[in-house]
Order: sequence, then C-alpha cells, then structure tokens
Amino acid sequence: MSEVSLQPQQVRDAVRAALAEDLGLAGDITTNAIIVADVVGEAVIAARQPGVIAGLALAEAAFCELDADVRFKAMVTDGDAVQPGDIVARVAGKTRALLTAERVALNFLGHLSGVATFTRAYADAIAHTSARICCTRKTTPGLRAFEKYAVRCGGGMNHRFGLFDAVLIKDNHIAAAGGVSAAIEKARGAVGHLVKIEVEVDTLAQLDEVLRHPVDAILLDNMTPAQLREAAAIARAVNPRIILEASGGVTLETVRGIAETGVDLISSGALTHSVKTLDVGFDFQSETLF
Amino acid sequence: MSEVSLQPQQVRDAVRAALAEDLGLAGDITTNAIIVADVVGEAVIAARQPGVIAGLALAEAAFCELDADVRFKAMVTDGDAVQPGDIVARVAGKTRALLTAERVALNFLGHLSGVATFTRAYADAIAHTSARICCTRKTTPGLRAFEKYAVRCGGGMNHRFGLFDAVLIKDNHIAAAGGVSAAIEKARGAVGHLVKIEVEVDTLAQLDEVLRHPVDAILLDNMTPAQLREAAAIARAVNPRIILEASGGVTLETVRGIAETGVDLISSGALTHSVKTLDVGFDFQSETLF
Amino acid sequence: MSEVSLQPQQVRDAVRAALAEDLGLAGDITTNAIIVADVVGEAVIAARQPGVIAGLALAEAAFCELDADVRFKAMVTDGDAVQPGDIVARVAGKTRALLTAERVALNFLGHLSGVATFTRAYADAIAHTSARICCTRKTTPGLRAFEKYAVRCGGGMNHRFGLFDAVLIKDNHIAAAGGVSAAIEKARGAVGHLVKIEVEVDTLAQLDEVLRHPVDAILLDNMTPAQLREAAAIARAVNPRIILEASGGVTLETVRGIAETGVDLISSGALTHSVKTLDVGFDFQSETLF
Amino acid sequence: MSEVSLQPQQVRDAVRAALAEDLGLAGDITTNAIIVADVVGEAVIAARQPGVIAGLALAEAAFCELDADVRFKAMVTDGDAVQPGDIVARVAGKTRALLTAERVALNFLGHLSGVATFTRAYADAIAHTSARICCTRKTTPGLRAFEKYAVRCGGGMNHRFGLFDAVLIKDNHIAAAGGVSAAIEKARGAVGHLVKIEVEVDTLAQLDEVLRHPVDAILLDNMTPAQLREAAAIARAVNPRIILEASGGVTLETVRGIAETGVDLISSGALTHSVKTLDVGFDFQSETLF
Amino acid sequence: MSEVSLQPQQVRDAVRAALAEDLGLAGDITTNAIIVADVVGEAVIAARQPGVIAGLALAEAAFCELDADVRFKAMVTDGDAVQPGDIVARVAGKTRALLTAERVALNFLGHLSGVATFTRAYADAIAHTSARICCTRKTTPGLRAFEKYAVRCGGGMNHRFGLFDAVLIKDNHIAAAGGVSAAIEKARGAVGHLVKIEVEVDTLAQLDEVLRHPVDAILLDNMTPAQLREAAAIARAVNPRIILEASGGVTLETVRGIAETGVDLISSGALTHSVKTLDVGFDFQSETLF
Amino acid sequence: MSEVSLQPQQVRDAVRAALAEDLGLAGDITTNAIIVADVVGEAVIAARQPGVIAGLALAEAAFCELDADVRFKAMVTDGDAVQPGDIVARVAGKTRALLTAERVALNFLGHLSGVATFTRAYADAIAHTSARICCTRKTTPGLRAFEKYAVRCGGGMNHRFGLFDAVLIKDNHIAAAGGVSAAIEKARGAVGHLVKIEVEVDTLAQLDEVLRHPVDAILLDNMTPAQLREAAAIARAVNPRIILEASGGVTLETVRGIAETGVDLISSGALTHSVKTLDVGFDFQSETLF
Repeated sequence: MSEVSLQPQQVRDAVRAALAEDLGLAGDITTNAIIVADVVGEAVIAARQPGVIAGLALAEAAFCELDADVRFKAMVTDGDAVQPGDIVARVAGKTRALLTAERVALNFLGHLSGVATFTRAYADAIAHTSARICCTRKTTPGLRAFEKYAVRCGGGMNHRFGLFDAVLIKDNHIAAAGGVSAAIEKARGAVGHLVKIEVEVDTLAQLDEVLRHPVDAILLDNMTPAQLREAAAIARAVNPRIILEASGGVTLETVRGIAETGVDLISSGALTHSVKTLDVGFDFQSETLF
Repeated sequence: MSEVSLQPQQVRDAVRAALAEDLGLAGDITTNAIIVADVVGEAVIAARQPGVIAGLALAEAAFCELDADVRFKAMVTDGDAVQPGDIVARVAGKTRALLTAERVALNFLGHLSGVATFTRAYADAIAHTSARICCTRKTTPGLRAFEKYAVRCGGGMNHRFGLFDAVLIKDNHIAAAGGVSAAIEKARGAVGHLVKIEVEVDTLAQLDEVLRHPVDAILLDNMTPAQLREAAAIARAVNPRIILEASGGVTLETVRGIAETGVDLISSGALTHSVKTLDVGFDFQSETLF
Repeated sequence: MSEVSLQPQQVRDAVRAALAEDLGLAGDITTNAIIVADVVGEAVIAARQPGVIAGLALAEAAFCELDADVRFKAMVTDGDAVQPGDIVARVAGKTRALLTAERVALNFLGHLSGVATFTRAYADAIAHTSARICCTRKTTPGLRAFEKYAVRCGGGMNHRFGLFDAVLIKDNHIAAAGGVSAAIEKARGAVGHLVKIEVEVDTLAQLDEVLRHPVDAILLDNMTPAQLREAAAIARAVNPRIILEASGGVTLETVRGIAETGVDLISSGALTHSVKTLDVGFDFQSETLF
Repeated sequence: MSEVSLQPQQVRDAVRAALAEDLGLAGDITTNAIIVADVVGEAVIAARQPGVIAGLALAEAAFCELDADVRFKAMVTDGDAVQPGDIVARVAGKTRALLTAERVALNFLGHLSGVATFTRAYADAIAHTSARICCTRKTTPGLRAFEKYAVRCGGGMNHRFGLFDAVLIKDNHIAAAGGVSAAIEKARGAVGHLVKIEVEVDTLAQLDEVLRHPVDAILLDNMTPAQLREAAAIARAVNPRIILEASGGVTLETVRGIAETGVDLISSGALTHSVKTLDVGFDFQSETLF
Repeated sequence: MSEVSLQPQQVRDAVRAALAEDLGLAGDITTNAIIVADVVGEAVIAARQPGVIAGLALAEAAFCELDADVRFKAMVTDGDAVQPGDIVARVAGKTRALLTAERVALNFLGHLSGVATFTRAYADAIAHTSARICCTRKTTPGLRAFEKYAVRCGGGMNHRFGLFDAVLIKDNHIAAAGGVSAAIEKARGAVGHLVKIEVEVDTLAQLDEVLRHPVDAILLDNMTPAQLREAAAIARAVNPRIILEASGGVTLETVRGIAETGVDLISSGALTHSVKTLDVGFDFQSETLF
Repeated sequence: MSEVSLQPQQVRDAVRAALAEDLGLAGDITTNAIIVADVVGEAVIAARQPGVIAGLALAEAAFCELDADVRFKAMVTDGDAVQPGDIVARVAGKTRALLTAERVALNFLGHLSGVATFTRAYADAIAHTSARICCTRKTTPGLRAFEKYAVRCGGGMNHRFGLFDAVLIKDNHIAAAGGVSAAIEKARGAVGHLVKIEVEVDTLAQLDEVLRHPVDAILLDNMTPAQLREAAAIARAVNPRIILEASGGVTLETVRGIAETGVDLISSGALTHSVKTLDVGFDFQSETLF
C-alpha cells in the first residue's frame, strides 16, 4: 500500500476545517479550564475491532495542528489489517492538544478505516477471480478524496473521481442525444484524447448496440450473474480489450457470484455511502511510551 | 418538525463545496458534450425504501446553484416518513443542471435521511418512556451541523455541538485535576454562567462522589440496565432535577431496556458515525409535471 | 490567568487577515524601498499608560508571519497589570518585518488591552461582592473571540458566545410565543440537554411569572438597585440556585451599587462596544536586547 | 455625502463573517425554537443618542442575508445627523430574520456611527479653518475600509489606506537609510510616479532638512501650536504647495488650536481606535409600518 | 461552439477575485468621486483586431457583480470570428459599474480571445488533415480552466486538465521505474479503469519498446516530420487504434508539415503560455442602445 | 534589484492555488504510481533562451509546499540577465515533490521572466534618456502583484496598482463631471492628501485646459513623437515639476522615439497583457549537485 498517498495540503485543510467545526470560537472549554497549559502526556490509539486502517495522516495532523511538537508514531501503515488490541499509533505531546484533538482524529480514522475494512471484505471475497471491487461517486460530501483513498487502502480500485475526468453515458444522455451512436460521437468529439468513455447498459440489446461503437468500457447495470456471463461472452467476442463493469445488487453475499462471471470490475456505492465506523479507542496514559 | 431549520449560508456553502468536488475544473464533461445547453426537463425524486426524509434544502440548493431558474417542489417535509414509491420532490429546469447536480443532491439527501431514519427507529423503540435518543460528537467531519439537524428530524435530541458549548468532564480531566471536586470547581470558575457542566462516571462509587457537587448532568457510561436503574434512583434521591444520560452498548435491541431504567437521555455515536444511506432515486422524465 | 488561551489557528487567521488589510498587493512600499532586506534589528513594546495587557499572542504572530525567525519575548503575561514605562515585550528579527508588522501588532494589542483594562476597572470596583462583571454580544464584528478572551484577561466572565450556545428569551420571543410559559416550553423542547435557558424581565411582575418555570438564569434589565435587591430576594426565595444577571445603566459609577444588590452577574456592552485603546508604544532600537 | 460608497462584495463578505461569528453551526436556537418560520414582522431602528449615522448598507445586508425578501427602508443617509428618537430605518420581513440579524446589524451600525459621530465633532470644531480632520492606520483589525468610510461620513478625510498606497518616511527609515536625503531618494526611485511621499519630523531642524528635498507632504508630530505655526510659516515659504499634517496630542479640546496654526490636516488615531458606539435601538413592532 | 461552457460558480469566483485585485479596500476612487451614484449609461465592446472571441461570460459577470441590474447583450458567441469594428457586446447600467468593471472585463476577454485566436490560426492551418491542435499544462497559474475553454473556442482540443486525470509517463518516470514496462505496469495497477495512459518517447527505439505494451497514446517529442511519419507508420502497424501526439518545435510555420505526417494531435504550450491579447475596445456612449 | 520583494503570504497563497489547480483531488497519479515515496533526487533549472529572471520565490515555494525539506538554491537573483545554458537554480528533495511541482514552478517562472525580459528590452532601448518604461492595469487576472513585481525586475516602473491607489481621470469622467475643472475638483475633494491625480488628454487643446489646474501628472495618449515633444514643452513651461506619461502605439520600434521627446514615463499594456514565456528547462538528474 505504500504508494498510495494523500496530498499534504489536502490533509491540512480537512483537519483544520474539522477542528474549527469542533472547537468553534471558544475552543475546548473543558480541557482549557482543567488542564494546565504546559502539562504533557501520552496516549495510545488501539483497535477495538478487527479491520483495515486508513487515515493515519489525518489523525496525526489533527494532533500536530494543535501542538506542533507532538510526536505521532504510527505502529501500522494505512492498508494494514489490525486485530482488537493492536496498537495503531502512539502520540505524545501537550495534554491539552491530545485531549482536544482526540475526537477529530478518531472521527477521520474510524470513518476511513470503516471504508477500508468494508472494501477489504469485498476484495477478499473475490480474490480468487480477476475482478476488482471499485467505488462510485456516491461518497460523503466533502470527503471524496479521502474515501477514495481508503478504498485503495482496502484493496479496491477507484472509479472516476468526478464528473470531470471520464465520460459515463447513461440512459438520459442517450435519450437526449437521440441514440447511443449520437451520444458517443458527441462525447468523443468534445473531450480530449486522454478521456475514456464508458456507457451504461441495462439489457443485452443495448449491449449489442453499444458494441458497434468504439468505447473503452461498458457498465452492465442490474444484471443477474447469468446475464452478466452472457454479456461478457458477447462483449469479449467483439472487443477482447473492452473493460466490463458490473453494478447493482452488490452485497457481500452476491459479490462472489458476480465476480465469477468474468467482469473486470464490480462497483458498489455502499463502500462509501453506508460506512460503519471502525471502532478505534484512544487511551490516555501517564507512563512514558517512547 | 417545522421549527427545525438550517441556515441559508450554511446550505449554500456546503452545496458549493460538494459541487466543486464533483465538477472539478472541467465540469460534467459527459452532459455538456451531449445535452444542448438550453434544453429543459423534469425529474422526480422518489423513495425506494421506507425511511425518514432529511436534507431537502441541500438537494434543492444543489440544483438551483447550477440553474437559478430551477423549480424544486418538495412533496414532503424534512422529518416526514416515506414509503417506497413515495415522491419526495419534483424538480424542473435545464436538463444539464438536473443531470449534473443529481448526484450531489442525492448524496446529501440519502446520507441525512439515513441519519434521520436510524434515529427514528431508536425514537420509536423508546417512545413509551420519557427517555430521548441523542447524538454525540462522533459525526462525519464537515457535516456535523447537517447530521445534528437530521437527528432532530428523526425525533432525536442534540448533545453539545462541539467542545465549545458545554463542559463534559471525563476521567482524564478528573485525573489531571486531581479529583472530581477540583475538576468541577475549575470548570465552574472558568466558564460563563450559561454553560452547563456534565460529568462522566463509570461506577456507582464515582456517581456518589459527583453527586456531592453541583453539576447539571451526569453521563452514566457502559452500565447495565440494572446498574442504570440503581444509579438513577441514587441520583434522583440526591438531586431530583439532575439530567441523567446513558451511553455505551446502545443498539436497537438494547435501547428499550436502557430507556426503561429512568434515564433522561440515551446517546449513541452510531446515529452519525455508522450511517446507512436511505435509497432515494432520481427519475428523469419527459412529461411535464408541474 | 494562565489557563485562558486562544486557539493557534484563530490567531494566525486573524493576523493574516489584518496584515493583508494593511499590506494590500504591494506591501510596505516605504520600508521595502528604504530598508535592505537582510538587515536585522530590535524593538521594545512598552506601556505608555497604566492598564491590563491582552493579546500578546496576536502581536507575536504579526511579526512571525513576516519573518519566521523573529524572536518575540513577552515580559508580561496576558492579564498582567502594567504601569507606564513597563516593558511588555521585546522583539528581534529582520528590520523590515519589525517595521511592517508594527501597526498590526499594536492595533490588536492596544484594542484588546483596552478591553482588559476597562474590564479590570469594573472587576476591581465590585471585588468586595460576589458579583462578577460580564460581557455581551455587543462586540466588534470579527473580533468576538478575541474580545471575550480579553474580558477574561481583565477578570470578567463571558456571557454566551453567540446565538448558538445558550437560550436567552426576550420580550419579542415571549410575545410571539403567546406568553412566558409557552416560550420556555418551546425552547426546552427544542434544544439539547446541555443548553441553559435565561429569560429577560423588566418588571417584578414578569419576574414572578418566570419564576414559576424551570429556567437557569434571569436577566433583570434596567432595574434600579432597589428593584434589583427586591428581585433578588424574591427569586432566591423561590429558587436558591437561580442565576441572576443585571443589565442596563452599568457604568463605573453605578456598578458597585448594582453589585451590592446580590445579583450574580452584571453585564455591560460597553466592555467591548466602546473600547478605548491602551496606549502601547513600539520603540525600535539599535542595541542588542536579548 | 451621497458620493461616498462601499463596494457590494465588501459589505456582503463582512456581514456574512459577522453572522457566522454570531450564529455558529447551530444558529439562533432561541428564535428558531420559539418563532414559527413563516411569521413576518416589522421593526424600527431609532437613534437613542444624538450622532451621525454610518453603515446603513451593512445593517441592511445583515437582514437581507437571512431573508432575501426583507424590505429595508433607510430614513436617513449615511452622514446625516440624528437626534434621539429619530428613525434611522424601518425593516420588515420574516420575524426570525429580523430577530436573528438584529445584533449584527446594530454592532456594525453602532460602531461605524460612533466613528462618524466622533469625527463630526472634530470636523465641527475646526470648521472655521481650512484644516481637515483625518484618520490613521490605527484602525480595528478587519474593519479598516468601513472605519475609513465612516470617517468620511463624519466629514473627515482619509489618510493612506495601508502601507501600500503611499510612502510615509519615519525616523527609523531615516536612520536606516543614513539620512533624510538618502531615504527620500531611495523611496522616489522605487515607487511609481503616482505615489506620494510624506516625511515625519519632530523638530524644526528636521523640518529644515526635509524641505531641501522634493516631498509631497510633511507630518509634524507632537509639536505645540506655537511650533506648528512656526513650522507652517517656514514650510510655506519654501514650498507653497506642500501639504502639512499635524499629529499628536489631538483631542476635542486641543484640535481648534492646532487647526488655527495653518496646517492642512490634523490626524488622530482616536477616531478609529477608541470608538464609543452610537446607541441605536431596535424596536420590534406588530403594526405594519410601510 | 454552443456546447462548450463554463461553470457559473467558476466564473463568479474568478471575476470576484479579479475585481478585488483591482478595487482593493478603497474601490474606484476616481469614478466614485466624480460620477454620481445613480447615473446610468451604456457602452459598446468592439473588436479592434480580427480574431476569435472567448470569455463573454466573464466580461458579463464583471459588470453584473457591481450592478445586478446591468443588461449585457452579447452580439457574438464565444468561438465566433470577428473583424475590426465588429460589436462584441453592448452593456447598459449604472455608469459607475460600467467604468469600474471595464478593465477586469477586458482583461479576461482580451486574454481568452487571444488564446482562441491563436488556436484558430493553428486549427485553420491543419484543417485539411485529420490532426487536431491541442493545449498542454503550460497555462497561466489560476486561469487553466478558462484557457482550456478558450482553446476549445478556437477549435482546439484539450489535453489532460492536470496531473490528476490521466497518466503521462515521461523519461524520469521510466528511469525511476527501471524501464518502460515496469512503469506502465505500475501505472496500470494503481489507477482506475477510466484513466488513460500515454507515454512520451524521443526516439524510434523507445517507440518500439512502448508499442510492446498496452498504452492508449504515445507522445512523439521533438521529432522531425520525417521521423514522425515513420513513427506513425510503425505504430499504426502494431496498433491501428493508438493515439499519436506530436510535440516540440510547433509553430504556425511548422504545424502544417507536422499535421501531414498522420499524427492525431499536435500539442503546443504556446497556445496558453505566450498569449497575445486580442485588442478589444470599450466605448462609453450617451445614446441609448437597446 | 535586491530591494524588490514579494510578501511571503502572497507567494504561498498563489502557489497553493496553482498546485491545487494542477493536482485536483487525486494528485499526480503518474508520479505517485511509479515513484516510491521516499526516493530523493535533484534537478537543475536552466535557461534555454536569453532573458531576465523573475519569480524565483514562487518556483521555490512550489517545491517546498510538497516537501518541506526541499533544498532550493537559486544561482541568480530576480532581475539578473541569463544566457542559454545558464543555471537558474538547483533543487534537491523527494523525487515525487520535484516531478509533481515542476510544471507549477516553471509556469510561474517562465511567465514572470517573460514579463521581466520584455520590460528589460524596452528599458534598454530608452536607457540613454531619462524616460522610464512603466506597466498598466492590463494585467493577467489574479497575477497583478507578481507581474508588477516582474516589471520592476526588468527595470520598469509601476503605474498605480489598481483603481484604489491613485486617481486617473479619463474622458468619460470629464464628460460626466461636465468638464476637466469640475472633475479635478471633485476628485481632489474626495480623496486623501496622499493620493495623486493624473489626467488623460488626447489633444493639445485638452492639455492646455488641464494645465490650468493643479494635477500631479498628465497622460498624453496616442500622440505622435512630434506632438509629444510639443506637449512636453508646453507643460514644462507651465509646471516644471509635472509628470508626463506617454501611452499608445508603444512598441520596441517606437519606444526610443517616444522616450526622446522628453516625457517621464512610457506606459505599455503589452508588458503584461501579451507576454511570451521565457523558455526555462527542468533537468532531473541522478548525480548529487550540492
């Protein structure tokens, strides 16, 4: 996972916004009233559930933003699997900074690790096939870059980032253009040479029509495994290099069957729109840890 | 629900940020390539699952941001329950605006309706008691105000908004202060007269100690229903007006038993940190709707 | 005063905005034309009037923003009283940074020390009573967090920070709700359990009515000391723990008489809306100071 | 005063920031709990003290920001003098918007009218002379453009806006440059042809030296009226078109004597750094006003 | 050209930033001093050179930002060719708004029309071939989206928008990866299925190696027309659908020869990094125009 | 050139915006996929054309923003002339940071060096006269401060920065005011004492009229050298200290003739609105350089 990375500015901006949301104008009135400014302390961040970690850079930044001298020592790497009790990171610095940033750090870490953990479950279920699990644009507003990063940490692939970086032609576009052919031609004429074109189809009849045109990928929506298998056979016969994506009805129960149909990608909005946080605890301690 | 409301600037800023995230610099290259700029159309937003709606203002703003002349007609109000097939809103305007804003509108609406739906399930389960379900600071970074609004739409109560608007003294604060008494006194001396103080306790022994001091609320963490019942009896005997909050191990299965112990509030991070989106569909149509 | 503190990000943002206001696009054209870039120098910030200092962190940040290597050595702490001639801080670094940031640093320091000084005068005048002086929402737009901090440095208390962190029911709310009782009930039902409710009353008749309801605090507006004394007696008889706040007609001449009536708090908008800057000088020097 | 104006974007940005400061994430929890969303109402803004009004555009924007349909009818113009009881503006719209924006509107209006009122007092005191009162860079951080506008509303002149739009050479610059002559030459060589140069002098000896160089204005700092008179005579003899500014020790008592010395401008930081708010009331009413 | 479009928020933000840059805190002090606030007027924007127009939406927004009631009537569409004297737009509204926004409007319009005009010259020169002219990432910082839009208005194609939306493997990447094959595999494994991969080659030997791998496009850098022709023949023989891009030494003199070699695209940084503004005049008039 | 400088915050903000534009949400997907995170490398920035360098601080900031430990060693200073092959800067740090920031760094450096180079050509052409070349407000939106800085690096002077820092009265202002005299009086009465006034004239008749009023500078627009010579003689006779600026038809061919007419300044929009980038290369290297 070591090559996956977030931009520093992106991390800083997101953490600052989250801290501002939690601190308001008046700050942590409990901690500031009770904890003396110069006291230092240490804490351990540990997993309370099995899962896959993602978002360590955001957790670290939350503490450092409040105390530039905080030492944050990650004991695992984003993408690593953890078991209950596993130490994820140790953090030492001003006690005020530790207690005040704790919730923001855990909110990011828990949410993104939740995404990675869910993704990993899908990825493991289809590891015996050549299919890959992949996210969608059904992300939490404001967190897309981080959630797509967490999907990669979990072993998934990223679909397009937004409306701007690839063409995905759906039924409304086709209807408005007056047919698949016109829609594809219009798109091809308007976008740059490094933009790929994918077309969504619901039926084998639509698939046949799309295959008459030069497209890069086809999204097979809401088909049964049997239909997917047939669609894959038809498509590969016409264009062996076409990319086939399946979507609709994807669950941990169904994903294996879908993957075995021979599609390249299986996309699921649930990876990012229905996230269960990974339970990660923050244990403040008095002994020196590192 | 009619009194619950969001600030217009808050809605606009969140929607603009989400659109920027989805549109990037180049915009919706598919729609712009295929749909002629002046064409208008209409769409229906309908529930595909039973649930409680929240976030209509954000959905409306997403469309209006791209076409100031969009007409958005909500058929339900935030806080209303819907059944599969129920029409949530009708929207008419430039086809480009409708198709481009669709995902941002649904991402907000699905997420917040998910929060409201989950909250309503808890609220219904304890409706026969005087206890109320309530959220925490375990919210999605950047969406706290909206998620807390959705909790209210679902019939829940809001805990403090952040670290700035109430004092919540936890074990680390007590340890650092050298005891409950010192912690409470320090807090009371530092904060304004309109700030309430709540103290978290894990045991009945701690409860006894806290009850010797003038606090507004006590958070009973990780206690069994039997312990909660005993704690409530002890606390009410000392201070009949004290507010008692239970937290820890709260699920749809356990919440009824907790509520029947006599606590005032039951707080659950899951309301906002483990949200399952409410499935809401967007059906573009050619007929005129309104 | 050591527990009172400002958030680092808050300080940085305010100082950057103030520098941008003073520097525009072209910067300090006088200093840049005349002072060579690498020359270093030193300066002393000294009080020219007796007063109470507040805002050192903002002054420091102003210099550091322009030269990260500036050494700023505060000789007093926020909340300390100073006499004319007392050295407040010494600062050494690039001469350009010192001369360019001087005015922004002093504008913050003078204004906030003015708030602290004014507050201290009130606080001293009522130090023999249990009453405390407290600020309002009548603050300078954009500076509320800093002015409320300065009030604390001066020995005052903070009222609510904004419209968001406590309920204050005034006559217009009562009229709109159709009575005190309805207004209080509506508020209590809508806000979280950690939000306090204060009600403003102008007459003893209104006070009687409010005392029938469970509220946390009562604002006694524009009453004479005699009326305040009577009001306090009535209120304490009904609810010994109720918080009583007096407002209206508060001056350095009247505040002692008001404080002796037994109220808990005396609020005055003048602490922040009619501030006289504390005269603090900036003396650039050639000798090395530290 | 009709030609003085503020930029719309400037007004909008300042008002939005001030509202955000007052509303936080949760908004006006009192008003939202008690006042039904659709109820409309009216209010009168009236002077409670004699003074000069400034900042009507900011007050109007505060209400409009929360309810785009608010009707705000100014009964006076910025720069007009008012007496106690004079109606400054009438405002009608959603009751929630009126009550929620009231404080932000009045904070701006009171502060800026305070600046205008104070300035007018100075301007009136020297109206029999050709001297003009003028502000400095000693402004409230974040409000410079508005305070300088208010100074103009009060009949004063604006000094340079910031460090960027004119050269003002002070003793530290002269010392660093190795003399007045070198400092002026360096400045003249570095700045554009539309930038004026003013030099500060404390003594008649310094004045003599400066007058040997082509400068646009001279700031005579901390001189007695007698010294100012002599300085003016000397300077006018050398350069009849030179602009002479006096500063230091300017109060309402001393300003007349200073103005009668023949200087062109008298600058005073107190116009903006020691502002007493103008008391302006907000009376919510049930009758229809316009 | 009618399908090419800019996002409204993008236009508004860019225009507001440009106005802020030109207006500073004090605004248009000349116009505000001389022109009465309510006076209205009209103006004509006309071409003074032959060229291609781009950026009308930005010009319109500049005027509307200062006077929401401005009527702006474009007489041509972005992408239209104009001759000297052709009227580009008519604008009527507050005279102050017209004179104050003029420069910002023309700075955008002139610059972007310059890009479109330059692009059109290239496009015309190669119109007899199937090759298309295309831009690069060598854009003016802050204006990329607008410049890429102007390239499309001029008849050019867009290369990738940034580092985020396509893979372009250069020599440094290949060296770091230890060969073309490794670099392509790493990229293919890391990016989503809708991301294209282009590889830059300088020699026919490199071309041979790249053609052994599945890539979407090849950038032939700094080759002579003869080399390009040979490269195209080789590449087409291996992969008839590969996209071939030529770059390096592209001028209006050389572009025809390059286009005739059979490449698909010719990219030139000069389209956006060496722009000659299109001379567009603003003639203020007293007669009513529309 | 050592006294010319940019503000650090200005540089940081511009570079961050440019990086955000190039990196989007997903970052440099090519480099991140292929280059291992911890690998370090070095590169040389070298001139490929003769020219004058400007913008080194922006180039440095681009690399440092992505890797705080980057060492950037400028081998020349802004304002220095370079020949093809001259090394401008050496940079060492994380390879990812070097490759990702390269384009942003060069886009700034090339553009601003282009401005400086063009300015230097004009400055050299008129070096034998006392006239100076000077820029206008015809700058690239968003880059004004940097382009005006580059003009100074090239040996040119800056005209006013924006509409806010000097008065320039044009024909439309004069017409609206009802004559030159009224326009000048209105302006003089409205602006501060440190604001200069320049008036634009097209004819000798207009010049005569303007000279009857006290103005600081006169802009002689679109006059032939012969007319300029006559205008200068007339103006100097009336007011020997008046500043005379010529504009219109300024090219490298005509500028010498214009300069020899005796005007003080020659302004040209082309310095900033029709910039040819200076070709500066970035050569990544494996050997250690410093």
